[in-house]
Amino acid sequence: MAVRVDLNISLDGYATTTDQTPENPFGEDWGRLVAAYTATRTFRARVLGDPSGGTTGVDDRYGAAYFENIGAEIMGAGMFGLHNFPDDADWRGWWGEEPPFHCPVFVLTHSAGRAPISFDNGTEFRFLDAAPEEALALATAAAAGADVRIGGGVDTVRSFLAAGLVDRLHVGITPILLGRGKNLWADLRGLESDYAVTSEVAESGVVHLTFARD
Amino acid sequence: MAVRVDLNISLDGYATTTDQTPENPFGEDWGRLVAAYTATRTFRARVLGDPSGGTTGVDDRYGAAYFENIGAEIMGAGMFGLHNFPDDADWRGWWGEEPPFHCPVFVLTHSAGRAPISFDNGTEFRFLDAAPEEALALATAAAAGADVRIGGGVDTVRSFLAAGLVDRLHVGITPILLGRGKNLWADLRGLESDYAVTSEVAESGVVHLTFARD
Repeated sequence: MAVRVDLNISLDGYATTTDQTPENPFGEDWGRLVAAYTATRTFRARVLGDPSGGTTGVDDRYGAAYFENIGAEIMGAGMFGLHNFPDDADWRGWWGEEPPFHCPVFVLTHSAGRAPISFDNGTEFRFLDAAPEEALALATAAAAGADVRIGGGVDTVRSFLAAGLVDRLHVGITPILLGRGKNLWADLRGLESDYAVTSEVAESGVVHLTFARD
Repeated sequence: MAVRVDLNISLDGYATTTDQTPENPFGEDWGRLVAAYTATRTFRARVLGDPSGGTTGVDDRYGAAYFENIGAEIMGAGMFGLHNFPDDADWRGWWGEEPPFHCPVFVLTHSAGRAPISFDNGTEFRFLDAAPEEALALATAAAAGADVRIGGGVDTVRSFLAAGLVDRLHVGITPILLGRGKNLWADLRGLESDYAVTSEVAESGVVHLTFARD
């Protein structure tokens, strides 16, 4: 059982973008940041439900590994959407009726007390107000021997990294400079000392770095 | 003729280190940041004057390219040492009597008026108070068709990048997190739009990224 993180970041370390507008709610930067991943065969099949086409190289290998052996996920309230829709008691997340998790998802929120939300595909969102260690204990039990993913967002990932709880951190670095947003690397000086670090360049130019420990 | 930059940076973008002490004037971080480069055959031969040993892989290929076809260099006052020894009129730089430049080196300083310093190996330090464009015009003339290197430090490199004067930026990214220092990437949002970016991983784990334009 391992605790895993996968993120797409820019060369300057940003995992979020800031150029959203009402007319372009994702912004252009987000598309550029994740372009290599969303072009993969795995993303098309697993997230878009389209099994045709897509790239099959290094990016797709990491994309496929992302979905393997995950028994539970932990995410922050922002990633689930609670910051955008704090007063909507019926909010069920961004992902419609087929959220691509297929496992229990623990949503960390200070406004706990929401009832769990279950989907036919095995996804169940559970809401709790807990420190990283406590959330991880619950997720580990729910994962029943499989891995736990810390899904995001950046603040949530950084809190688990800072607490030393992550066994494998994979970042896909897109060689663009966003210049602003939330920086994954802030205040993580010396993180590498607990890990073996490996690097690989994809055909797309994305650099895949993995921090792994036994 | 191209304007070139080569820097070793950490995964979080720092090209300087901050852990210097009186007992350890370089600090430990600097050695870790440049370890793969200083291990190369090229560095040993060209900088240490020791033609034996050293690595001969990807890092060495970039190390050797660093020395090719440079006709003039531009550096900041800090890199030359003027900030450390502002009152020493006899200061001749950090490099002793064999500075590894073998060409004119234009040192940007607001306290101009220092006399040039010449060495038998072709290095000549010339001091001037000039904007990037003006310094580059002088260096380009001195280079007589060969390339001009912007040597450092980080502030000087960033001023040339921000002014759009750099044709080829090569960074060797060591996968360590320094967490503080001077960050190469600050305020360079969108830099990639003027360049083709290529990536390569060395045997050492260092990721070599090159921003190049015609």
